[in-house]
Amino acid sequence: MVGDGESETGPLATSWHSNKFLNPIRDGAVLPILHLNGYKINNPSILSRISHDEIKHLFMGYGWTPHFVEGSDPNTMHQKMAATLDQCIKEIKAIQKTARDTNNPKRPLWPMIVLRSPKGWTGPQEVDGHKVEGFWRAHQVPMSNIKDNPQHLTQLETWLRSYQPEELFDENGQLNAELKSLAPQKERRMSANPHGNGGLLRKALRMPNFNDHALALEAPGKISAPNTKPLGKFLRDIMQKNMQNFRVFGPDENSSNKLDDIYEVSKKTWLADYLPEDADGGELSPDGRVMEMLSEHTVEGWLEGYLLTGRHGFFSTYESFVHVIDSMFNQHAKWLAMSKDVPWRAPISSLNLLITSTVWRQDHNGFTHQDPGFLDIVVNKSPEVTRIYLPPDVNCLLSVANHCLNSTDYINVIVCDKQKHLQYLNIDAAIEHCTKGLGIWDWASNDQGEEPDLVMACAGDIPTKEALAATSLLREHFPQIKVRFINVVDLYKLSPQVEHPHGLSDREFDSLFTTNKPIIFNFHGYPYLIHRLAYRRTNHGNLHVRGYKEKGSINTPLELAIQNQIDRFSLAIDAINRIPSLQKIGGHVQEKLRNRQIECCRYAYEHGVDLPEEDEWTWKH
Amino acid sequence: MVGDGESETGPLATSWHSNKFLNPIRDGAVLPILHLNGYKINNPSILSRISHDEIKHLFMGYGWTPHFVEGSDPNTMHQKMAATLDQCIKEIKAIQKTARDTNNPKRPLWPMIVLRSPKGWTGPQEVDGHKVEGFWRAHQVPMSNIKDNPQHLTQLETWLRSYQPEELFDENGQLNAELKSLAPQKERRMSANPHGNGGLLRKALRMPNFNDHALALEAPGKISAPNTKPLGKFLRDIMQKNMQNFRVFGPDENSSNKLDDIYEVSKKTWLADYLPEDADGGELSPDGRVMEMLSEHTVEGWLEGYLLTGRHGFFSTYESFVHVIDSMFNQHAKWLAMSKDVPWRAPISSLNLLITSTVWRQDHNGFTHQDPGFLDIVVNKSPEVTRIYLPPDVNCLLSVANHCLNSTDYINVIVCDKQKHLQYLNIDAAIEHCTKGLGIWDWASNDQGEEPDLVMACAGDIPTKEALAATSLLREHFPQIKVRFINVVDLYKLSPQVEHPHGLSDREFDSLFTTNKPIIFNFHGYPYLIHRLAYRRTNHGNLHVRGYKEKGSINTPLELAIQNQIDRFSLAIDAINRIPSLQKIGGHVQEKLRNRQIECCRYAYEHGVDLPEEDEWTWKH
Repeated sequence: MVGDGESETGPLATSWHSNKFLNPIRDGAVLPILHLNGYKINNPSILSRISHDEIKHLFMGYGWTPHFVEGSDPNTMHQKMAATLDQCIKEIKAIQKTARDTNNPKRPLWPMIVLRSPKGWTGPQEVDGHKVEGFWRAHQVPMSNIKDNPQHLTQLETWLRSYQPEELFDENGQLNAELKSLAPQKERRMSANPHGNGGLLRKALRMPNFNDHALALEAPGKISAPNTKPLGKFLRDIMQKNMQNFRVFGPDENSSNKLDDIYEVSKKTWLADYLPEDADGGELSPDGRVMEMLSEHTVEGWLEGYLLTGRHGFFSTYESFVHVIDSMFNQHAKWLAMSKDVPWRAPISSLNLLITSTVWRQDHNGFTHQDPGFLDIVVNKSPEVTRIYLPPDVNCLLSVANHCLNSTDYINVIVCDKQKHLQYLNIDAAIEHCTKGLGIWDWASNDQGEEPDLVMACAGDIPTKEALAATSLLREHFPQIKVRFINVVDLYKLSPQVEHPHGLSDREFDSLFTTNKPIIFNFHGYPYLIHRLAYRRTNHGNLHVRGYKEKGSINTPLELAIQNQIDRFSLAIDAINRIPSLQKIGGHVQEKLRNRQIECCRYAYEHGVDLPEEDEWTWKH
Repeated sequence: MVGDGESETGPLATSWHSNKFLNPIRDGAVLPILHLNGYKINNPSILSRISHDEIKHLFMGYGWTPHFVEGSDPNTMHQKMAATLDQCIKEIKAIQKTARDTNNPKRPLWPMIVLRSPKGWTGPQEVDGHKVEGFWRAHQVPMSNIKDNPQHLTQLETWLRSYQPEELFDENGQLNAELKSLAPQKERRMSANPHGNGGLLRKALRMPNFNDHALALEAPGKISAPNTKPLGKFLRDIMQKNMQNFRVFGPDENSSNKLDDIYEVSKKTWLADYLPEDADGGELSPDGRVMEMLSEHTVEGWLEGYLLTGRHGFFSTYESFVHVIDSMFNQHAKWLAMSKDVPWRAPISSLNLLITSTVWRQDHNGFTHQDPGFLDIVVNKSPEVTRIYLPPDVNCLLSVANHCLNSTDYINVIVCDKQKHLQYLNIDAAIEHCTKGLGIWDWASNDQGEEPDLVMACAGDIPTKEALAATSLLREHFPQIKVRFINVVDLYKLSPQVEHPHGLSDREFDSLFTTNKPIIFNFHGYPYLIHRLAYRRTNHGNLHVRGYKEKGSINTPLELAIQNQIDRFSLAIDAINRIPSLQKIGGHVQEKLRNRQIECCRYAYEHGVDLPEEDEWTWKH
């Protein structure tokens, strides 16, 4: 954690609070150095232009003991810096000794260093009459046009000769042996620190059997259960078997996201003040391995650092606010993509991101919490490193999470809501379905042995429920119609094989989605994403996608679905419009469906909850 | 600026430095209140669990004078809070008086308040044996199942009766007249503060004539110039005419983005320490109206606040790092969309965002700085409030910026690189072109009076240059081929009219893009965005889009274009593949183009710059 004083960005400011998450008994130590060289590209940095006292107060306020190394004479500064480093290491060791001898993990005031040195230090003081050393001009090429400006050339020579190369190199231009021997050897070299190539240190997780938390179903689509609760139990069991190299991360949302069973084996890391009432459900401990801070940036940064040094992690966060880390996601994805081209880089654990508290269940929070657009950012990044899963129920989520936690070098984005949802697949069926990534749900289809009239496809929990209910409506009103029901978990299956390694071949895709029948695709996110993935497919011209279209408020689930036309009625109406044999005869049914839709909206508006018969709908065929 | 102690998010932490941007002579004042009620949904907040001294140090470090109001007895606390508010206002007035009397804008240590009160204050102390008041449990419904749990019902009644409603309301349930009269009247009511409905205070900008900064061109595609430099002069002139209600914002990049002419009339706001050398090019002043901090979050927050209170602003930032504010953009767009449904809300100035230092010119910065994906976020938001422009040259950028600065209630995203680029349109042509939003460039087309064999379309500066050069190659090698050249500035013109108010009608679109000829579209961003906008168009099946596909490093411009296949050679090769009459005869030319492409890559690799003849290419037809 070395800030360079150039960036005042928020995430860095927040991460200074990370000392409340470091246990002096169990954990290692960090010696942060704030390097205040005074300037950014064109501006002074703010922290370099406040008083010594203010800087001191600021870092004392963050809970550190600041040490200052300030000056511009190189020899004096080298001595000062060396002495200060020695002093800080002594303090760190004393802190650790006290904590370990007394077994008291009380939060210490760890040392940190404020290093104030000139920008462009030992460079030219002035060029063309303008200050360079110790000023923002040193950020760029200090003197330009060397070839044609003899004065600049002389100045460059004087500058470079000031480092006395004749003392550093022999007559062949080789570094003097004496100096060369000062450099550390092997793994003591900063570039060869194994923590900098964390994949070398990585040990695979010891994985418990996720089947232990499976939900038993007598039949598909009959009972409801909160999707994320059993995942919390699975994470708990993983934690129990991996208490050295696994952590769970989230911005104050692990309980809200129903993953709180994790606390049975490990609490939230907490070294700030502890009050007696915390014992009643606070789940705080200096030994905790669950990392929570209401700063998505900081949590993402912690997780990336943890993975890069060879460990494993799981991050859950609210869907709408995952956009807070878009930029960090982008950079991590770029890093992973590039690292695959570097032969000596060993694979690291995947970054596993559960997006929950999703758009379709914002009954209390409303419009501000409705944004499923993170996936649109994900698909811009290299297909070598990105994976997207939308498990529709408990057992699929368990299977997907198990797969992701065993993988390396990916960013696995899992979208699954925390609320009670209809359950579809028993664990064996879920494993088959998730391993294929998408598939026909035989029990929900009636086109066996025949050409379907319609393909009803879906991805995501609520969209799956509505697509099933629409299928049911169609089959009730038009028993002669053959519907093929397809659910998609692994979104990249829709991509052409040449664009993503998970993509289905065109032949497989055509067999599933037909080459000429209407497809209605009910999607969790913004609808265009499905077109983006599938637009090269043969039957794309008949693909009709529904998804979130930025309509919503504090709505009941069905009301919100209706506003965005992903509801059972809108889908069934669409189907009637698109199945040639129903276009002429379906008008009466369409009217009935529209009436029912209006009734549902009126009921929701009046009662604040959905019409019970529709809300409690289950699969009956 | 009232933090609630619930959020430790970075942006909030950074914004505490905003006191370095507040001029006690000129500006108003802010009295920040940090409300530490101790808890978030499930966790203590960090700042509530550090010592009184640490909090005090922290805010002194940020440059404030903290005042503490701490306790839990309501009557005592009301008195304490009132006295502290009086004291703080006295301090603020004294600061302003001293500064104004002495005409010395030295940064003062403004007061701020730390209010520490229990969460769920005066609510039930315990429910079912669990602490509620002063604990995180107060975040949720404090007692559930009131209907069926008589003990809870009693407790609820006791709690609500503790507020002594009989003293507050008369027998008809009306608030006592005496209490009612305590509330402020009219605009003194918080809800009726005109700054909360800033559109009421908004005055249109006094606009100078942007034509004054137009670049004179003798012919299209002959000379190069930095695209953003004249915009800086235009912004300077706007500033000069609007020194009360216009500001320019950027994260330390206004100079880097070549908008530095602005400093001729107003400097960067700066009230932290000032050094003598700052006089030489530092452009700092306590009176400055240019707001720079290397925190995209803080800058975006400042701008939103400035617009919401009725002023005008212009924000420029690096393309790759605009993702830092994705989440803030989303929320502002949602706010704007909702505000249109609220009849008493007056329109506010648009949020004008110039995205520059773009993906195609990262000759020094490389892969981390290549991300044109912000537009994919923008198109997810309501078409009522989003606008996207890609002016290809100086004059188009001036015309677009002029339009945006006159508009209200939009988020205008302008994408235009800061480097030297080929110039296409004189100012009259630019105004026509940008007003239409897209159009045929007659001088670059040779299908006048005939059906074209190919539509070559483009959006963005570098893609336009490459598309023109490809057109030129095609016309040289195949003089019989008719190419129609279309440039798109207003991206939403591609949308169907029913999806965006700027969308072309299908008839207009068909006339321009034909219903059956191949279209090659060279795009600035990720290619799918063009398909997303245009996929309902008649000729979508023949639309072939090139754009950034996450390939790059520290490349020369042409090398990067080649890696992503948006270069002149790739486009010409594509065209040969797609024009039926060339498919059989174009093989030899394709080989030549491939060879030249390879030569260009080898030259760039060897010399670190592009082959001069290709780099200095100009339009010759």
